[in-house]
Amino acid sequence: MANDEVILLDFWASMFGMRLRIALAEKEIKFEYKEEEGLITNKSSLLLEMNPIHKKVPVLIHNGKPICESIIGVEYIEEVWKDKAPLLPSDPYERAQARFWADYIDKKLYVSSRKIWGTKGEEQEAGKKDFIEVLKVLEGELGEKPYFGGDNFGFVDIALIGFYSWFYAYETYGIFSTEAECPKFVAWAKRCMQRDSVAKSLPDQHKVLEFIQMLRQKFGIE
Amino acid sequence: MANDEVILLDFWASMFGMRLRIALAEKEIKFEYKEEEGLITNKSSLLLEMNPIHKKVPVLIHNGKPICESIIGVEYIEEVWKDKAPLLPSDPYERAQARFWADYIDKKLYVSSRKIWGTKGEEQEAGKKDFIEVLKVLEGELGEKPYFGGDNFGFVDIALIGFYSWFYAYETYGIFSTEAECPKFVAWAKRCMQRDSVAKSLPDQHKVLEFIQMLRQKFGIE
Repeated sequence: MANDEVILLDFWASMFGMRLRIALAEKEIKFEYKEEEGLITNKSSLLLEMNPIHKKVPVLIHNGKPICESIIGVEYIEEVWKDKAPLLPSDPYERAQARFWADYIDKKLYVSSRKIWGTKGEEQEAGKKDFIEVLKVLEGELGEKPYFGGDNFGFVDIALIGFYSWFYAYETYGIFSTEAECPKFVAWAKRCMQRDSVAKSLPDQHKVLEFIQMLRQKFGIE
Repeated sequence: MANDEVILLDFWASMFGMRLRIALAEKEIKFEYKEEEGLITNKSSLLLEMNPIHKKVPVLIHNGKPICESIIGVEYIEEVWKDKAPLLPSDPYERAQARFWADYIDKKLYVSSRKIWGTKGEEQEAGKKDFIEVLKVLEGELGEKPYFGGDNFGFVDIALIGFYSWFYAYETYGIFSTEAECPKFVAWAKRCMQRDSVAKSLPDQHKVLEFIQMLRQKFGIE
């Protein structure tokens, strides 16, 4: 795959884009990062061409062909570059469990976290409550393992860790401490952050806070 | 796998359960079907034990271990019984595309279809409009192929065909004709219905209509 052209159409603050950045880094695949500058205001013709159905980043473009939806992209990376740094277990049952938790994160975590910074009053409180509940469920699944993948950093870790770069913002607007509520979760996140693949793929949490501040002003939430 | 114990915890009208029934039938796997009788009113202790996170059918139980979320279950069936009747293509890009469309169905079709029978007035009209748009997108993806999987019935066909048993109810409450709006889609559905695996896994559409009529009364939509 020496002559492969791999492009990641992404937006720096996207926790979904971070999944692909990390998976590509774990597999040591060189790729061209293309920032979708006008994501909020003016989507690029490349994005509309590559993801006409959802019109969302991230899009992984491999030799000109687009793969949309971040979890599907991570599975694709796993299948194409299968000889290096396996992200999914080989046992079908364990694979199904990993897919279950990635799906749980997609269904539950984004929605509740979005309410923490994107709403006010009761809706915000409900979002915060749901968010912490979801983290506690995930903490239960993690148990005493170092990673969701057991001894190895893997699929569920990749699906989840990008959210951590938004935690400072969630905590600022929701007025709570994740570490006080879910210490094992935070210990896991700090463990992941020690990996090069993660550290270089996640943005600075203060920059994320500034970005969300801008979004709140734009949406009139202040 | 001669001594495998396969149980499907399901509810007869679930289009998600139908996916697993069809996948098991395609692979010619014998299984015990367990109806979750009290789905609406009183969930069984088996369901709560097997799917404590979502508390929903279907659950595939293989040698005592539960696999939740229907699409994940279909992938599991494909991986465990891989030698017979492949449901996914072998090419990673084509696999990613199949997963994309199954995900699209999960994200878009249920929500819009639910509004057709479960709401009134403007919300119902919006649901109907979205529903037909989603079908047209899917028709575009089908193109001139006999199945979404090309010449072979496969993953996307399995993800989608269960909804067809609810179409008579959607059409009755939404007052429209799918065949007039999306003739190629209906031709595809009828083609699928000629397969034994599908015909024996889908309930009678009149029985589904009666069931939805009961739900509408229960929810006070009439």
